[in-house]
Amino acid sequence: MARTTVAVLGASGYTGAELLRLLIDHPRVEIAVLAAERAAGARIAQVFPQLAGRLDREVEALDTERIAARAEVVFSCLPHGASAAAVAALAAKGRLVVDLSADFRLRDAAEFATWYGPHPHPELLERAVYGLPELHREALRGARLIASPGCYPTATILAAAPLLARGLVRPRLVVDAKSGVTGAGRAPSQGTHFSEIGEGVRAYKVAGTHRHTPEMEQELSAAAGTAVRVTFTPHLIPMARGILACVYGEPTDPSLGEDDYRSALVEAYRGEPFVVVLDEGLPDTAHVRGSNRAHVAVRLDARAGIVVAMAAIDNLVKGASGQAIQAMNIALGWPETEGLAGVALFP
Amino acid sequence: MARTTVAVLGASGYTGAELLRLLIDHPRVEIAVLAAERAAGARIAQVFPQLAGRLDREVEALDTERIAARAEVVFSCLPHGASAAAVAALAAKGRLVVDLSADFRLRDAAEFATWYGPHPHPELLERAVYGLPELHREALRGARLIASPGCYPTATILAAAPLLARGLVRPRLVVDAKSGVTGAGRAPSQGTHFSEIGEGVRAYKVAGTHRHTPEMEQELSAAAGTAVRVTFTPHLIPMARGILACVYGEPTDPSLGEDDYRSALVEAYRGEPFVVVLDEGLPDTAHVRGSNRAHVAVRLDARAGIVVAMAAIDNLVKGASGQAIQAMNIALGWPETEGLAGVALFP
Amino acid sequence: MARTTVAVLGASGYTGAELLRLLIDHPRVEIAVLAAERAAGARIAQVFPQLAGRLDREVEALDTERIAARAEVVFSCLPHGASAAAVAALAAKGRLVVDLSADFRLRDAAEFATWYGPHPHPELLERAVYGLPELHREALRGARLIASPGCYPTATILAAAPLLARGLVRPRLVVDAKSGVTGAGRAPSQGTHFSEIGEGVRAYKVAGTHRHTPEMEQELSAAAGTAVRVTFTPHLIPMARGILACVYGEPTDPSLGEDDYRSALVEAYRGEPFVVVLDEGLPDTAHVRGSNRAHVAVRLDARAGIVVAMAAIDNLVKGASGQAIQAMNIALGWPETEGLAGVALFP
Amino acid sequence: MARTTVAVLGASGYTGAELLRLLIDHPRVEIAVLAAERAAGARIAQVFPQLAGRLDREVEALDTERIAARAEVVFSCLPHGASAAAVAALAAKGRLVVDLSADFRLRDAAEFATWYGPHPHPELLERAVYGLPELHREALRGARLIASPGCYPTATILAAAPLLARGLVRPRLVVDAKSGVTGAGRAPSQGTHFSEIGEGVRAYKVAGTHRHTPEMEQELSAAAGTAVRVTFTPHLIPMARGILACVYGEPTDPSLGEDDYRSALVEAYRGEPFVVVLDEGLPDTAHVRGSNRAHVAVRLDARAGIVVAMAAIDNLVKGASGQAIQAMNIALGWPETEGLAGVALFP
Repeated sequence: MARTTVAVLGASGYTGAELLRLLIDHPRVEIAVLAAERAAGARIAQVFPQLAGRLDREVEALDTERIAARAEVVFSCLPHGASAAAVAALAAKGRLVVDLSADFRLRDAAEFATWYGPHPHPELLERAVYGLPELHREALRGARLIASPGCYPTATILAAAPLLARGLVRPRLVVDAKSGVTGAGRAPSQGTHFSEIGEGVRAYKVAGTHRHTPEMEQELSAAAGTAVRVTFTPHLIPMARGILACVYGEPTDPSLGEDDYRSALVEAYRGEPFVVVLDEGLPDTAHVRGSNRAHVAVRLDARAGIVVAMAAIDNLVKGASGQAIQAMNIALGWPETEGLAGVALFP
Repeated sequence: MARTTVAVLGASGYTGAELLRLLIDHPRVEIAVLAAERAAGARIAQVFPQLAGRLDREVEALDTERIAARAEVVFSCLPHGASAAAVAALAAKGRLVVDLSADFRLRDAAEFATWYGPHPHPELLERAVYGLPELHREALRGARLIASPGCYPTATILAAAPLLARGLVRPRLVVDAKSGVTGAGRAPSQGTHFSEIGEGVRAYKVAGTHRHTPEMEQELSAAAGTAVRVTFTPHLIPMARGILACVYGEPTDPSLGEDDYRSALVEAYRGEPFVVVLDEGLPDTAHVRGSNRAHVAVRLDARAGIVVAMAAIDNLVKGASGQAIQAMNIALGWPETEGLAGVALFP
Repeated sequence: MARTTVAVLGASGYTGAELLRLLIDHPRVEIAVLAAERAAGARIAQVFPQLAGRLDREVEALDTERIAARAEVVFSCLPHGASAAAVAALAAKGRLVVDLSADFRLRDAAEFATWYGPHPHPELLERAVYGLPELHREALRGARLIASPGCYPTATILAAAPLLARGLVRPRLVVDAKSGVTGAGRAPSQGTHFSEIGEGVRAYKVAGTHRHTPEMEQELSAAAGTAVRVTFTPHLIPMARGILACVYGEPTDPSLGEDDYRSALVEAYRGEPFVVVLDEGLPDTAHVRGSNRAHVAVRLDARAGIVVAMAAIDNLVKGASGQAIQAMNIALGWPETEGLAGVALFP
Repeated sequence: MARTTVAVLGASGYTGAELLRLLIDHPRVEIAVLAAERAAGARIAQVFPQLAGRLDREVEALDTERIAARAEVVFSCLPHGASAAAVAALAAKGRLVVDLSADFRLRDAAEFATWYGPHPHPELLERAVYGLPELHREALRGARLIASPGCYPTATILAAAPLLARGLVRPRLVVDAKSGVTGAGRAPSQGTHFSEIGEGVRAYKVAGTHRHTPEMEQELSAAAGTAVRVTFTPHLIPMARGILACVYGEPTDPSLGEDDYRSALVEAYRGEPFVVVLDEGLPDTAHVRGSNRAHVAVRLDARAGIVVAMAAIDNLVKGASGQAIQAMNIALGWPETEGLAGVALFP
């Protein structure tokens, strides 16, 4: 069987590296192009020594013409803004594009403008499919432009959407999420310098200022069938990978018990290959590191009248590169778990 | 000036060690007795090598008669239950006792029984003063039995009490807190084994099952003048020390702005030696590690209609041993900052 | 093609879990038996939640009769001593046994006795093949009893053997190695409690007291063709996985340059699927985490007259479970990289 | 008693912050000037939030005239090269200068030139006293220009000098040292980005290329009374603070036992306020974090004929700022432990 050629744009960052790690062992694809501006000219194993012995290829400058000529599928890990231009050019040439930036995640150009400024290609927004298979599997089949979800929204939506879809909690949520530092990218900064962040925890972009907020609200509102308001607090935790999202909501029916909420999750995720509703215990990011799985759970605080739903994912896998491959698999009609079955690396 | 003799019970645990670190350089005290069941017979520097060269003393078995004869002040770091018995015996002999366990924190014996089982000395509950100086400074002057607050309640109360006291948020809070692993104590366990917890984050005792919940509610209700309900989610974070508490509440007056909430904190903590309301930036546990300071801040998410108050403390200092010394200083009429002024160890 | 049935003894520890992670996706095997004394009766996903959704099987008590009846290949992750008995029983029944304990690594029963006490089955020592494929590939073909190497010896031997084999350094080495904490196993202890070990570094079992010393000497002496003496210092580092070994030796020929030493490594490992001699940069355990690869390098300190050879491995993969599978692949005549090709998880 | 005015140059880096932490509570000094080029104009608590509530002062640009007018003692934490110019100017004005850079540590201008390029003020080299009190206490009394030792040399010299001084080991050492990441300074870089370095270990500047090598050789040669050769391998470890140095040497007298080496350390450090020769156990950086103490130990590998001496320090305290204050105390005739007695922060 001939392998499908793929390109990775932005191959020198962490989501790029994670795509390579997974695609190298994907039985249906061939990595044909690596592009990254800063690293152009280098061998990929100089950029990422972990690839030495597995992938020996030069990183190229970003040239959409040349890329389109050699790749049938393109993953873009470019920064938002830069990604939109490349995505539009490659989509126009008929390539299947999976965009890991935020550029095509919001359906509403006005909402996009509020958070990011004017969208350069608003006409493409309606064509893009939000690449969360657990919510949009049907729309993904045959899709040609996929907006791969953000890491925080993935965890939050997986925890909360089934409860909202069944009307079990009110459409107003507190989301308190904890992320590993890879979520902040590969570029060095004071805030992600080891000595500054290695032994502490802090919130950032609190009180509705993080750009993942509208993405959560868009998808949760669609699930709920009514406008959902989210207050979102992200934190950085001294670990490399993982997101744990805790979602707090008020029950709509005070007579329900914890099992009712749990059943909603079990029912929603029956047959899902990558979502595990825990039988016992609580989600721990250590148990999904390196895997495309999400671990979810829900608890009822009957005293206080609050439902707490939780999800743990690896921000670089289910929260980014793994989910992007999952969406590609669906779009191309391949088995959904192809290349993604690997067990988490614990410990 | 003759130094006041002090005893530390439970000297082989982390709060015991932290008391020793601070008391060694306290100019008004002399460490006269170290007691700990398991470590009895050992030199303290065998138990804690960091004390080599500063404190050379044998750890004794717990004998309240012998302790009362040699110490004017007693700090108990014994586990709850065990602590109550020792505290009662030493208090009966007229010693000033600062209890770091949970045994005397709740005013209501019935509430205590709900969470911990029947109280062995309910008659002492009304005599005990809850040792949070920022709320109970006057009551602490001359106090003889001090219940030193829990680590999570300290951070939560410092963040939220001023807002509740001024009626700025509704009496129903979501508290999502992140703790370093020393909060789980010194006894080895699967859950705190380095390889299990070193690169992940997880919640535990969620949905109102953590025993610090009633303590928060007691103190916040007193501050609010009305019953306050808290849903509390603690997390363990891969760092040794620190607690960051995020408290979410609904504004009572939608016309207020972020500055109004901030002003409430500034006003509440004016002149407080150990609470810093941050001018800019958000609390980071790394900035209070090893110090008795709390860093607090508040933000308004006007979109979602939620106030987020945050506090960062060192769980072993302001959340335990430092605060216990602060309370002793007040009880004895000494300068409140004596022995506690040290700057945090950053990085 | 029918899959070969395998059993994992000691499945509740870290090397057991790592075997499962790798064997689950190995295309030629079927995991038929999981055995572990303490965890017997539990589902494996209760013991290791990362396996939820991938492996649903009960852990059994250790019964070699029942195991032999259902598994063609047996991996033993039992503690040394306990392992020898199970290995002997299963080998007697004709099973291919790969022993990850230390019980069959030393050829010399007297040497074994010096370090571990009398060997319970000395007659098997000469039948066991030391499972380091880079040195013993031919002997592994068709082998039925494989002693999988220790983690420290693997790193040390890979760095030093080519230099000794070519007579480039004198047969007396200083080995200073740094290990992640998983090397200490899964049982909780004071020394591996997160709060004790999370922010520090220390040596242990120094000055020739670590039992991996005779194993290094046996293999390096064989490579050198003369008795090699090693002084070995292991350290625990606040990370979960990885070993970095630095080996110091004196050049035999002062006229040689750094390139000569490097050429020896390049030549020794030409064609090796799992050893990468770095072109530039130095080995970093972060670049091999989760993979079966070793990164090696050598430098000459011409001023001081010392050659420094280094190797980085993942102690649980190339240092244990991955290497055990590699040896099985060879023993059974399968492609050596089957099930082991995965790229390291970085970051 | 009037306090002595001090200035800290380079106050925005880690050694600057550590000086401030210690000097704030030093009973004989007053922090009069903070200078740092990049941070000039900021309040120090904006640069280091841990100082909020303890030190409220503006950071100034570097103006040696203005500094000399207001400070009697100057600590320079400027980068090497930049430091020499400021030190020369301030020394010329009669200020007591403690230089934490490498600029005045080597006695020999030619040796300095080999490692750093031509020295801008070679005439000052002979005036500078190497500020390791355990070796140079007498020379420090009354000194006016103090070259504070490097972090790696401090640990290495404390471990090895007594053995060399007594002729117990041959003058050729292997030094394998492990450092926390603060040793690499506060400027962000790829190599010290949390996600790159947080879960791995690697060596750097190996094989005699690290500039601390000549400093070790200078001091150890002086102690030995003969030229000592060192091959030095530094490593970065995923922790913020601490250095553990392992020093390997050959015994000169094979008949000696471990106690003989230990006695040499005990004798050398009798009465030293900041060096603890451990009775049992091995040095652990966690036990000296935040303190000015060094923990040292020695072991004999009689099998291999190697002596292993070890020292653990906090690189920012005994390896930098604490030792600089210790030297100032001696130079000014103050009690040597003034401001430095604090116990390590464990855990």
